[in-house]
Amino acid sequence: MSDAYTRAGVNIDAAAETKKIIGKLARTTFGPEVLGGIGFFGGLYEFKGYRQPVLVSSVDGVGTKLKIAAALDKYDTVGFDIVNHCVNDIFTGGASPLFFLDYIAMGKLEPATVGSIAQGLAAACREVGCALIGGETAEMPGIYAIGDCDLVGFVIGVVEKDWILQGETISEGDVILGLPSSGLHTNGYSLARRIFGDRRQDLETYYPELGRTVGEALLEPHLCYYRTLKPHLPAIKGMAHITGGGLIDNVPRTLPDGLGARFHRGSWPVPAIFNLMMARGDVDADEMYRVFNMGLGMVVICSPDDAGRLAQAVPEAVPVGEIVPWSERPRVIID
Amino acid sequence: MSDAYTRAGVNIDAAAETKKIIGKLARTTFGPEVLGGIGFFGGLYEFKGYRQPVLVSSVDGVGTKLKIAAALDKYDTVGFDIVNHCVNDIFTGGASPLFFLDYIAMGKLEPATVGSIAQGLAAACREVGCALIGGETAEMPGIYAIGDCDLVGFVIGVVEKDWILQGETISEGDVILGLPSSGLHTNGYSLARRIFGDRRQDLETYYPELGRTVGEALLEPHLCYYRTLKPHLPAIKGMAHITGGGLIDNVPRTLPDGLGARFHRGSWPVPAIFNLMMARGDVDADEMYRVFNMGLGMVVICSPDDAGRLAQAVPEAVPVGEIVPWSERPRVIID
Repeated sequence: MSDAYTRAGVNIDAAAETKKIIGKLARTTFGPEVLGGIGFFGGLYEFKGYRQPVLVSSVDGVGTKLKIAAALDKYDTVGFDIVNHCVNDIFTGGASPLFFLDYIAMGKLEPATVGSIAQGLAAACREVGCALIGGETAEMPGIYAIGDCDLVGFVIGVVEKDWILQGETISEGDVILGLPSSGLHTNGYSLARRIFGDRRQDLETYYPELGRTVGEALLEPHLCYYRTLKPHLPAIKGMAHITGGGLIDNVPRTLPDGLGARFHRGSWPVPAIFNLMMARGDVDADEMYRVFNMGLGMVVICSPDDAGRLAQAVPEAVPVGEIVPWSERPRVIID
Repeated sequence: MSDAYTRAGVNIDAAAETKKIIGKLARTTFGPEVLGGIGFFGGLYEFKGYRQPVLVSSVDGVGTKLKIAAALDKYDTVGFDIVNHCVNDIFTGGASPLFFLDYIAMGKLEPATVGSIAQGLAAACREVGCALIGGETAEMPGIYAIGDCDLVGFVIGVVEKDWILQGETISEGDVILGLPSSGLHTNGYSLARRIFGDRRQDLETYYPELGRTVGEALLEPHLCYYRTLKPHLPAIKGMAHITGGGLIDNVPRTLPDGLGARFHRGSWPVPAIFNLMMARGDVDADEMYRVFNMGLGMVVICSPDDAGRLAQAVPEAVPVGEIVPWSERPRVIID
């Protein structure tokens, strides 16, 4: 029998086709630092121009947002999600992205789906000057159902050692600026799916509060803050990327001991999708703030003077709170 | 409702517990290059001591070998699989590993399972002096069934630009040395599962040909060739890590234009598991060589003189073929 592997659910030809599609798109992201092209066992990236480089890396998945993409068979945005998520993560440390690798796993390899995902990956990488240097596409019948997939991203960036941003200089009275999210970004989708359902007809339901279908609102791509904020790094003392765990869990990751954060409800607009979920799902406000970003995709901490200048230069950055002393009570207060 | 997220199938406390387990294990892999510990948005790795560094990266999954681990509830080896797979990949380019990140996704987060996987990840990283610098653990009900999981690894290594190994100096008459695999490594498991079945009782079947149960044979960890071969890099012209696609697809990745490879069947021992699959699954020998490594986990190409010296220093490296001119016929011949 010469087709045993195919009959076991693995299609080597589909794998070759997807490799070709991804390779072509990946090449659109290559600068002269990428050596040796595609097809070798590892991606090669020539690294130069830094005095005392620190490599900053992060790995993330898109989570069950993929179930929404699958139900609507619309995969053109999830590539942006994963690149932007990863790039934001390393940027909170002050790092600029160098290169990115992806992992796409499916129950049955669909070259068209992979192509659609890869278009997004490549476009998002080009926007931040990052090379899509490698990836793995896996066909795993029995782990993923037909039509299901997982998408994982890895990013490597670099920052000069003395410019690492980890919040050490943050002090009481510093201002917290918030940058708007576009919606859920990539977190809280298991709860969102429970509230709205995740069949096509559920997701194609139009909600007047949203001014569009819920599927459209839920697939809104994760925003990237790198290009907006990078020019202002010297004015920034610390950043927190608001992902799973919301403001509550993420803001403390950048705060020095003894300091907490106080946010003022109403100082930023909460997108309609969150209020709709709270009402339809009968979810506590406290839990909403523990699961979702509630409209803030990134927060930036600056001295009061720098905060004023930054808010002028970046109009979407609005003051949403301040740094306060912290000992016993919750470290992040939203009132 | 304050437990909406838990009721949607996501357990934030289990996530916190697994983070703690992984963090503790990860710290056992840290050298002084790792800055800032765990818990920040990105892993920080100080990079120094290279003249003209090229970063070499790779991403891989364990594939449906995880179904075997799941059926036997035995996750202590898959961590070795993914680290060793990734490290072998970048080592074929001459690179030494710097750091590693993992992604573990499950239908229902089981801290004990994650702990078992992470033990293997950390131990394998320590063996090659690589820092387990970051990771992501995702609970994705609806994409993964309860008890199913996926494991993805991502490695970054470095090589001096003028020591990159990509096979350019390989020439006709060079000798191919093969290093034994321990079994399937991490490829071909969808076919193996189809042949043997993947329920616990299937996998606990004892086969006299194997001298053990088939589950034990199938979970044998992917070998790492880095420590064995690294001291001999100056004698090596090119390497191919034999993964999905077997000798047929992987050896050409390191060959210059115009050259092919001829392997001699019988010059290395084919482990019993492959012969058993061929017989039980009624699989063509040709397809076996296209899907599986057939007993060779890594091949190394050297000049005849260096091959002799290398085979003396590394007794498990045996001559298995040679480099031949190539134009029309298959690029890899196994006769």
